[in-house]
Formats: sequence, structure tokens, C-alpha cells
Amino acid sequence: MNDFILKGDICYSHDLNNLFTATNHYLVCENGIWQGVFAEVPTEYWNLPLHDYSDHLILPGLIDLHTHAPQYAYRALGMDLGLMDWLDTYTFPAESRYDDLEHALITYRKLLTTLVDGPNTRICLFATIHNQATLALMGLLEQSGLICHVGKLSMDRNCLPALSEAEPLKDAEAFIKQALTDFERIKPILTPRFVPTCSDQLLQGLAALQAKYNLPLQSHLSENKDEIAFVKELCPASSCYIDAYLQQGLLQGPTIMAHCIWGEAEEQKIMLENKVFIAHCPQSNMNIASGIAPIRQYLSQGQQVGLGSDVAGGCHNSIFRAMTDAIQVSKLYYCLVDATQAPLSLNEAFYLATKGGGAYFGKVGSLEAGYEADAIIIDDSSLIDQDYAGLPERLARVAYLSNDQHIKAKYVAGRMVKGEV
Amino acid sequence: MNDFILKGDICYSHDLNNLFTATNHYLVCENGIWQGVFAEVPTEYWNLPLHDYSDHLILPGLIDLHTHAPQYAYRALGMDLGLMDWLDTYTFPAESRYDDLEHALITYRKLLTTLVDGPNTRICLFATIHNQATLALMGLLEQSGLICHVGKLSMDRNCLPALSEAEPLKDAEAFIKQALTDFERIKPILTPRFVPTCSDQLLQGLAALQAKYNLPLQSHLSENKDEIAFVKELCPASSCYIDAYLQQGLLQGPTIMAHCIWGEAEEQKIMLENKVFIAHCPQSNMNIASGIAPIRQYLSQGQQVGLGSDVAGGCHNSIFRAMTDAIQVSKLYYCLVDATQAPLSLNEAFYLATKGGGAYFGKVGSLEAGYEADAIIIDDSSLIDQDYAGLPERLARVAYLSNDQHIKAKYVAGRMVKGEV
Repeated sequence: MNDFILKGDICYSHDLNNLFTATNHYLVCENGIWQGVFAEVPTEYWNLPLHDYSDHLILPGLIDLHTHAPQYAYRALGMDLGLMDWLDTYTFPAESRYDDLEHALITYRKLLTTLVDGPNTRICLFATIHNQATLALMGLLEQSGLICHVGKLSMDRNCLPALSEAEPLKDAEAFIKQALTDFERIKPILTPRFVPTCSDQLLQGLAALQAKYNLPLQSHLSENKDEIAFVKELCPASSCYIDAYLQQGLLQGPTIMAHCIWGEAEEQKIMLENKVFIAHCPQSNMNIASGIAPIRQYLSQGQQVGLGSDVAGGCHNSIFRAMTDAIQVSKLYYCLVDATQAPLSLNEAFYLATKGGGAYFGKVGSLEAGYEADAIIIDDSSLIDQDYAGLPERLARVAYLSNDQHIKAKYVAGRMVKGEV
Repeated sequence: MNDFILKGDICYSHDLNNLFTATNHYLVCENGIWQGVFAEVPTEYWNLPLHDYSDHLILPGLIDLHTHAPQYAYRALGMDLGLMDWLDTYTFPAESRYDDLEHALITYRKLLTTLVDGPNTRICLFATIHNQATLALMGLLEQSGLICHVGKLSMDRNCLPALSEAEPLKDAEAFIKQALTDFERIKPILTPRFVPTCSDQLLQGLAALQAKYNLPLQSHLSENKDEIAFVKELCPASSCYIDAYLQQGLLQGPTIMAHCIWGEAEEQKIMLENKVFIAHCPQSNMNIASGIAPIRQYLSQGQQVGLGSDVAGGCHNSIFRAMTDAIQVSKLYYCLVDATQAPLSLNEAFYLATKGGGAYFGKVGSLEAGYEADAIIIDDSSLIDQDYAGLPERLARVAYLSNDQHIKAKYVAGRMVKGEV
């Protein structure tokens, strides 16, 4: 079932600036790995079944490097509140209820429908501190065929009593063991919420778990200035926010840091040296009035950058929206903050949404030979204008104007997770 | 046919900050005018037909104060280009072809479908310099039942030869006479493209036509700094950009100026004194890297402000998108430009999208008694979360997350333009 040929109009990023496009071509998958794009099917593949998507766009799946699963329930709500009021009104009360598995499943089942329907094939999620509900979420995702890294939150200070863990390391290890046993496509990821809610002891303990189980890690970094000042107060020996993670021995494995708006030279240096993935979440950064991350600067430095929806800081799970938000805020950065930093182009945003974020998952985010076989099939016939029907124009239309209903099929590592053959 | 009762969950703006909400209420229309919202239908209306939209949201129609009809053909394209390159690559070549009526109708028919399907009930449109194509557009709009003000462009300098009118005033008057004769719901509006493309003589002539026919006027103002510098060069005697219009005798009738990003105190004073409607087009202002208009300041001054899609500077015709874009850019303005200017709230953005822009059309943009009967009926059942099902939450969800398919019916001045009874 992981061997097949797709036919259609193919478009993916070679690199930050260059798009590969080919109409009416064939894309071959064997064992869940792309074998190449061909004008005619090579004879050695003649036995494979053909999924004919003629006139449809075939793109790599999009990668969401940062979202919060329970926050799906209140996406688009409370956007008039400041960050702390919003957390107190929505986030913390909502997350407190996730010790109730049935309650958790109401939201997680709805979220699953959205994630399957949308353009994202790989997603990194924050759940809550609750092992049972988080494992149940992972079970739903495993069945769907999506590939996700899911974190049970770790937090033990500066939060509601109901959300402050008494034995966070014991809970974290139990979660890791269970998740590694139960799931194949869904993996656990260490998830200290952020420095303000994690004691030094907790961070050190997570570093030990990371070494023992060889796990990736995700957290938040330099989202707003009050937060940065608070971290400085909590960790006076750290040279910058990310140094508070580094000093506790974290950053030893693959690491995703969401936001990265306000970090200065020292923090940028540490991110680069440790190959940290920056999850750029432009809509959330607007909604919460956090600012605009200097993505052009990060790209010039050679940082690893992908995109995140950050629902419910962001309202939209689709990484198409994150692509166009990233372009739009980069233009405001250019005209209001620093005219030496050119705006992101559509090709660059598409790269970030696919290969850029995909690199976190390995050879993911491209349709080139050797990459894992993620793809989305888009019926963009209602969006095409006859005078502007080239593949770059169609990609632009899809990015700015499509919704989940335009996505006819979706494949993840060779498995069809949406659509019918 | 203009007398009926709507039943559903009703929501409109009292004023900038206050929302009226009532579930399961009745909204009465007589002769195309709202008569009030009632918990029970008063006996004098018992003979009117009931359109039962129970469990649906009933909102005022949204108002688009600024869009370009021919640019619909290339919305979402060329967004990597700067303004001048974009105009040269897309706008001017495309507009040059509108002397061909059949060609024009291809785009105008597609645009019509989008405008009927979407949430906007009243729209101010720029067309092209061509009388025949513009009148054909107005004919399509008239049949649809939407209420629109449509401008044949006037321009006679600094543009492609094919777009520079030899007898702009003769053309403009012929257009006005024909439009006033042919249409009832669709009205002509004087439309000098902007100062750089309009000679003093043309602007003076338009002022004379304005006096003769008592017409409103729409144009562009202070969108970007190069444009402002160019106007200063062209009109050295003007104290500011808008003064170049004022000195030629314009601003005597209802006036809409799109963008208004960079004008300083003198310009703001002239706008206020002349009750100019500011068409705030936040997405266009991002896409073209123009900047962020100081809307909080305008509201504090008591300026008249509405929203515009500015397709194809913006990609989306729906004014729901303009609402949320306006909120988001106001948050960036607050955190990057001026922390004394509070971000727009959802209620404020909803006001701008309805009553704010609606004031240009008269008593429009509310469901209060005495207002013209524009409404949109939204099936938001797929967007509601049981834990957050109040009308303000539902309005927020619709603003951020709905698309045209959620709009089940639409009424404009008492006439149903979408949906079935």
C-alpha cells in the first residue's frame, strides 16, 4: 500500500529561492519514499498502481512545528485580551480540566478532524500535563496516519495549583515509556512549557531523560519582553533566555523553540550552534501583540526555520495561512522596523512551510527522490484564472485563497490519510 | 417582497464598544427598513412572512469601502513585487484590455459570483477608464441586488498611453448620465485614480461635475511615502496630499479616501473638517508594504472610518478578513510603533465593518429600527464550541474562521440576494 504513482501538476521547493514545477508529471513512491518525478513512468514502475490527479496540484505536505492541542477548543476567542489575561481566562482553566479523559476527547476528536482535513502532514503538538489524555490524543493521531510529535507538558512552578506537577519527572518518564511502547507514527517529545513554569530541578531532570531516551525537545523562547525579564529574574546566571535551557543541559538533541522574537546576538549564536529549529508563528505573534520575529536575519545566519500555527495564539491550523502571514508580517518588519531586511517571498515562505520545517523530521518536505512520501493533492480549479494559470501563480492562489475543502487527498510517509483512490 | 420577519440569533453594534445580542429573536422589515428586534412578534406584523433562521447568526451586512473590480482577476498574484513593479506587471496591462467588453465581462462575472456569495452587502468599486465595460459591470451588479457605488476611473497623466484619457471630462460626464439613467441600486461615483495620474485641469473639471450632479467621490490618499513625495512635487502649492484635492474644489460631497497611512496633523485636520470617510485597507497595506494606518488615533479624533478589501492589493473580498486584519495590524502598531495607541477590539472592528463604513451609505450597517434592511444569515454550527457558545464568541469565530460557504442568506435593503426562503 506504500507503493504507488501520483499523476498531476507538481510543485516543490528546491531551496529557499527556487521552485521545481512540472505539469502532467508522475511522482513515484516506493516503501513510503519518493523515487523521483518523471515525464513518463519508467518501466521498472509499470506494475505500481496509478492515482490519477490530472489537473490537480501536487505539493509536499506542510509542516506545523508548533501548536497546542487543547487550545483548539477556544481558537479565535479572547483575542482582545493581553497574554496573561488570556492565559488566566482561557488556557489555564481549560487545561485544568484535562484530567477528565472524556472531556479531553471532545476537543481532541474535533481537532483530529481539522488536522486530517487540512494541508499539514506533520505536526508538533503541546498537550497538557495529563498523561492519560495526552496518550489518548496520540492514539487518535496514530490511527489517522498523520506523523506527529506530541508533548505531555512539564511544569512545576508559577502556575495554577491544578497545573503544577508534584512529581513532574516521574510523570514525564511514565509518559515517555508508554508512548514509545504504544505508537509507531506518533512520538513523544519533551515539553517543558517554558522557563517561567519549570524549576531548575525539573529542567535538569528532563535533560537526564533526554539523554536516557534520546528524545527531541520543544518549548517557547523570547516571545515577549515581560517574559524575558521574568526569565532573567528567575535565572540570574544565564546570559540570555535560551542560556537558561542550555545551562540545565537541554539543547542536546533536536530542539524546537517557538517564537524567538526578541533574542539578541548571544541568543542567536546559541540557537545556531545548537541547530535549534525556530518555529516562526506569525499570526500568534500578531494576535498576542508579541512582535515580529526577524526571519530574514535568521535565514542570513543559516538558522533552521519552520512555521507554526500556534493555535490558539493563532486561530488557523493551516500552514498555508502561516505562510502568507509570514510574508505579510515580514513586509511590515521591512517598512516599520528595519528597511535592510527584505520581505519574505512566496517561494521562501513555501520553503519554510515544507523543507524548512520538514528538516526537523528528517528527509521531509520535498517531492525529490529520497524524501519521505508526504504530499497534498489540491483541486484548485475554482481558484485558477485563465490568464494566470502557471504553476507559481496557482501556488500563490492556493496559499492565499484556498481552504481545507480544496484538499482532495493527503499522503503521509506513503500512507493515504485523506481522500479515496 | 420587502416586508418580512427574520428569526434567529441577532448581533449588531450599538456603537464602537457595545454589541447588541439576542438569541431567538425576531427582526422585522417593512419597505426595506428594519422596524426593530423583538422577543415576540408584535401583533401589527403578524401578517408578514417569517423567514426562520433559528440557531443561525443574523448580522448586518458588511461594507467594503474600497476595492478594484478588474483587479479581481489577479488577486493574490505578484505579491512579491513592489508597488510600482506590481502596477506595471499586472494592473496597467490588465486594465488596458478593458476596452474589450467581452474580455472585461469574463472577470466581472467571476467577481459578481464572489460578491454575491460573500458577507458584503454594499461595496464601493473602482473600475477602469472604459465607460462601456464599467456600465456593463454596473448592469451585472444591479441585477444581483447588491448596492454599490461604481467609479469609471479618471486619469490623464503619468500612465500608459492606453490608459491616459484624451477627453476625461467628456468621458466622465457621459458615464455619469448613462449610469444615472440606467440603474437604481447602483450609483456612479467620481473616481480620480489619485493625484499623480490626474492633472489639475481634470480635478477641477471633476469638481464641476460633482457640483452639477451631486455625486460622491473616491480616491487614494497617503498610501506610501514615495507617492506623497511625488504629489508634493506635482502640487508644490498644497500643504499636504489631501490639500491637492481640496485646492481643486473636491471634498465638497461625500468622499472616501483609501489608505490614509502617512498623513500628518494638517491632513488629518482637513479629513476631519470635510468628514472624509477613511477606507482602512489593512491587508493591502501589508501586502504592498505600505505601513499601518493609525486607526486608534483617527477614532480618537472622531474621524469617519470604514474598512476596505482593496482587492488586489488585498487578496480577500470578505470584510470579515479586513476586520481581523485590522485588529492584527493594530496590535503590531501598538507593540512596534506607538504603545500609547491601544489595539482595536473585535467589537470596534465589527463596528467599522458595519456601522462605520455603512454611514457612507446613509442609515446602513445596523439592525436597529430605521436602518436599511441589510443582513447576512450565517450557519455557524460547524464553528461553535459548546463551552464557548455565547453570541460574542460566535461572532469572533465567524470573523476569524468563517468562509463564504457559511453564509446561508443575504439581504440588501430588504431584497434577498443570496439564499432561498
